[in-house]
Amino acid sequence: MIKAAIVGYGNIGHFVLDALQEAPDMEIAGVVRRKVTDIPAELQPYKVVTDIKELGPVDVAILCTPTREVEKYAAEYLAMGINTVDSYDIHGLIPELRKNLDKIAKEHATVSIISAGWDPGSDSVVRTLMEAAAPKGMTYTNFGPGMSMGHTVCVKSKEGVKNALSMTIPLGTGIHRRMVYVELLPGYTLEQVAKAVKEDPYFASDETHVMQVDSVDQVKDMGHGVHMTRKGVSGKTQNQRFDFNMSINNPALTAQILVGVARAAMRQKPGCYTMIEIPVVDLLPGDRDYWVSHLV
Amino acid sequence: MIKAAIVGYGNIGHFVLDALQEAPDMEIAGVVRRKVTDIPAELQPYKVVTDIKELGPVDVAILCTPTREVEKYAAEYLAMGINTVDSYDIHGLIPELRKNLDKIAKEHATVSIISAGWDPGSDSVVRTLMEAAAPKGMTYTNFGPGMSMGHTVCVKSKEGVKNALSMTIPLGTGIHRRMVYVELLPGYTLEQVAKAVKEDPYFASDETHVMQVDSVDQVKDMGHGVHMTRKGVSGKTQNQRFDFNMSINNPALTAQILVGVARAAMRQKPGCYTMIEIPVVDLLPGDRDYWVSHLV
Repeated sequence: MIKAAIVGYGNIGHFVLDALQEAPDMEIAGVVRRKVTDIPAELQPYKVVTDIKELGPVDVAILCTPTREVEKYAAEYLAMGINTVDSYDIHGLIPELRKNLDKIAKEHATVSIISAGWDPGSDSVVRTLMEAAAPKGMTYTNFGPGMSMGHTVCVKSKEGVKNALSMTIPLGTGIHRRMVYVELLPGYTLEQVAKAVKEDPYFASDETHVMQVDSVDQVKDMGHGVHMTRKGVSGKTQNQRFDFNMSINNPALTAQILVGVARAAMRQKPGCYTMIEIPVVDLLPGDRDYWVSHLV
Repeated sequence: MIKAAIVGYGNIGHFVLDALQEAPDMEIAGVVRRKVTDIPAELQPYKVVTDIKELGPVDVAILCTPTREVEKYAAEYLAMGINTVDSYDIHGLIPELRKNLDKIAKEHATVSIISAGWDPGSDSVVRTLMEAAAPKGMTYTNFGPGMSMGHTVCVKSKEGVKNALSMTIPLGTGIHRRMVYVELLPGYTLEQVAKAVKEDPYFASDETHVMQVDSVDQVKDMGHGVHMTRKGVSGKTQNQRFDFNMSINNPALTAQILVGVARAAMRQKPGCYTMIEIPVVDLLPGDRDYWVSHLV
């Protein structure tokens, strides 16, 4: 059994618990949180600690912290001999994170699989496969409509925001609108918050609307979707068409992918990887031969 | 530059030539055929030989022979120190082929990537990813309507058949009808041929209709398609839905995938692999870092 720790217990952490409970080859070493007070009922059977060292042996830490804290935790755990996985989602900064963690992982004979949610993550695998199938052409990734967790966390971190929701609306050909709903703390104006949101790298390149609401909970739904399309050329043959769709509960899928890469981390050589760099079969439990005969 | 040989020059071989000509990192070492007479115009710039040894150094042989001849050629070339790739498509026999070639490849420090077309092949990667995304649930692979090359070659091999075409018709939930059109040689009856076709493992488990036509060419179109769907459970969250579609020229896509895995074969440790066992990024030319920053 692979001993997995859940680090951070927000939305993703909660769904990772579900996925670990269903995984036939994993056991829950415990949960690492900032505070060990207010432990929810479903965590009662498990160790809840503030320092991963209190959990005893851990094979892999599943980082469910805000994206911006991923590097700090990964660097620390990798150096302690613990593999890490995360769903780091700031696309432009992934190469740098990969380079930094690769060095640490190799020094300490550990494995890190980063940016492993659904986008970046499983979508990245599909994009790469489509590129290989038709090397010339254009891929469009259309998200939503749905709640973006990374963008929502980003908005929540802004000064003056009490609660927030960022919805992604697909406008086609990979163009999106961001609809941001905020509850404000007393003494802050919508203009201040809207400016801070629109200047953040998460939002800077998209059409973004920030609106004030009385209750974010009233407009919140964690369903999401993606529609990826590629039209391209295989060899010299034009008009090869591919598309991939999904309609999913966002944190549940992210959590399931994280549990898959936690397993895959046990099967790679030391270093840091993104999902396109590991064999997809390594995401699945049990014997490779079984999956070759069932899925190939 | 990777030196690739094309082995067999039928439909697939022709499209592999196209794909190699477009690949930035590959050069065509030559073409291996049973006879070197009747060389088509597009092969004039290349060596055409009956024995791969006549080509000088070859890094990888792309096997474009009928499926049933794959193992013989792969075993021979792997033992000569040449990597091989193929699109072997008899699903039930893939594990055995993999096991046999793995032994030879490891003995001779070579790499073989088998069953690398679109199904088995790129579809296998998507099926595996869908399985990882929602471990409980059902995947259906619906083919067509389109010409099945493996099935067509199978029919052509039957005694009394002058020319043939096998069309795959999707009936939903992974059930297919096979519509087989044959031109007969003099002295043979449709009944004899139909019996031989229906008894073949390629056709035995599907509803199969065999019909006689005056001209197979008149009914032939190499377009094909697939629609894969999965509805399943991520962790404990139900109704996660995924689907993958493509509408493609069949031999052109098979050939493009073969060229991708020919490249990937240069990047694996000795052994025999299916596509779900290699990182998808290895299918693409050039530097991994480039693709991580562009596709993840």
